[in-house]
Amino acid sequence: MTPYRRKVNYYETDQMRIVHHSNYIRYFEEARIDFMDKIGCNVMYMEELGLIIPNIDAYAKYLVSLKFDEEFEVRVRAKSFTGVRMEFEYQIYRTSDNTLCAEGHTGHCFVNTDHKPISIKKSHPDIYKKISDATKL
Amino acid sequence: MTPYRRKVNYYETDQMRIVHHSNYIRYFEEARIDFMDKIGCNVMYMEELGLIIPNIDAYAKYLVSLKFDEEFEVRVRAKSFTGVRMEFEYQIYRTSDNTLCAEGHTGHCFVNTDHKPISIKKSHPDIYKKISDATKL
Amino acid sequence: MTPYRRKVNYYETDQMRIVHHSNYIRYFEEARIDFMDKIGCNVMYMEELGLIIPNIDAYAKYLVSLKFDEEFEVRVRAKSFTGVRMEFEYQIYRTSDNTLCAEGHTGHCFVNTDHKPISIKKSHPDIYKKISDATKL
Amino acid sequence: MTPYRRKVNYYETDQMRIVHHSNYIRYFEEARIDFMDKIGCNVMYMEELGLIIPNIDAYAKYLVSLKFDEEFEVRVRAKSFTGVRMEFEYQIYRTSDNTLCAEGHTGHCFVNTDHKPISIKKSHPDIYKKISDATKL
Repeated sequence: MTPYRRKVNYYETDQMRIVHHSNYIRYFEEARIDFMDKIGCNVMYMEELGLIIPNIDAYAKYLVSLKFDEEFEVRVRAKSFTGVRMEFEYQIYRTSDNTLCAEGHTGHCFVNTDHKPISIKKSHPDIYKKISDATKL
Repeated sequence: MTPYRRKVNYYETDQMRIVHHSNYIRYFEEARIDFMDKIGCNVMYMEELGLIIPNIDAYAKYLVSLKFDEEFEVRVRAKSFTGVRMEFEYQIYRTSDNTLCAEGHTGHCFVNTDHKPISIKKSHPDIYKKISDATKL
Repeated sequence: MTPYRRKVNYYETDQMRIVHHSNYIRYFEEARIDFMDKIGCNVMYMEELGLIIPNIDAYAKYLVSLKFDEEFEVRVRAKSFTGVRMEFEYQIYRTSDNTLCAEGHTGHCFVNTDHKPISIKKSHPDIYKKISDATKL
Repeated sequence: MTPYRRKVNYYETDQMRIVHHSNYIRYFEEARIDFMDKIGCNVMYMEELGLIIPNIDAYAKYLVSLKFDEEFEVRVRAKSFTGVRMEFEYQIYRTSDNTLCAEGHTGHCFVNTDHKPISIKKSHPDIYKKISDATKL
């Protein structure tokens, strides 16, 4: 699968002249949504079906600071999936020299439009299968 | 009416070591929502009534840069209101020395939950009256 | 020149289920920085030379709301340039159907690392020429 | 110590109609900076001394979603401090009903203006003492 790549935006820097640490959580999200799209589970499409995937938690470890205009790549892996919960792992690399800049993980559940937790095994078997298959990669 | 005041957050700075210019548009919004609340038109309450107030436009002029940890105050004025459209004016002052740092204006319309423009004169006469009265201040 | 394109991120939406209006100011910046890079005036390189280009003002007019996951394109034009000041114009199109979603302009000056305004005609003739040439496009 | 309190801003919501999860990392920062100020270690002052405190990591666990206009309070505790590294713990409560909405922790180191790690025990004994004392609270 092609990794998610883009450049750091100016407004993502702070007065330390590096990317503000909160933005890595956003980079994880960008890459996760791209990953879901690539495995056939477009997040907007799922929300239109009434299937919403909020975060349960998020962790980021900062190793080397990304700077404005640097290109980075986010590698995503679906680590676990039960139909009720799902975990992703991430590594962010600076593409110029393949330096690992940050890594982390996020946990998610599935909720309906009333924000009630659901298991998607029976309610959405096609999506269940796609995520299951992707978790084995 | 008490003006809206708070300090600049670290994550609002950029690598120029000043507040990123896009955040002033957010400061305008914070102060506008505070203003609406103070005149009895709480924005969350209005959205629960099905009345949404999107932006038509936004303008900011940057005079003196705000920096991290500086306290600022946003003065808001409802400049015009027709029941269909509404305009606000803003000035942002650094409170330590009363320096005018930025000024601007925003235009708004009223839409229902289907994002269709509406006139609130007949649909919401109480809100119409409150905004009308505030526009004369 | 290739226009600047990308998709709307989830975190750029607000509870109206559209892109928060402040983000268009950020889209303008992303496209402006891309434009400057393409004409040979990389913004990070210029900052390393001690040449910083803050905003004097910014205006955005919102016509049609962009939504999560929609691809958009930002067309940028250098409208005026004196060596002391510079103006850009922007149009943001939804690429799926070429709908104009927003337009706007920003004004800029040039400052040194002490944030003092400078004229780049004599101080940076190469950059002056590149921006001059781009303004005639 | 008075806890850090404020309301959720409109632009902090996303299309789930809740605060976007990345913003909790920013709320932690706001409260941490407020805490440091209250113990006599103003972060802007420390940066002017050449003492910068970047994040090593950040974790947030999301329990109950905060919504637009809700007031919340962030309780911060300095959990550990060695002069080289420092850890903070956070709980975020919705103030209307004292519901725990999120909790988390962040790790930090101290660096100089060249972004080199330093121990502040000898370099900044007064700041060392203030943080040490606060960690025992």
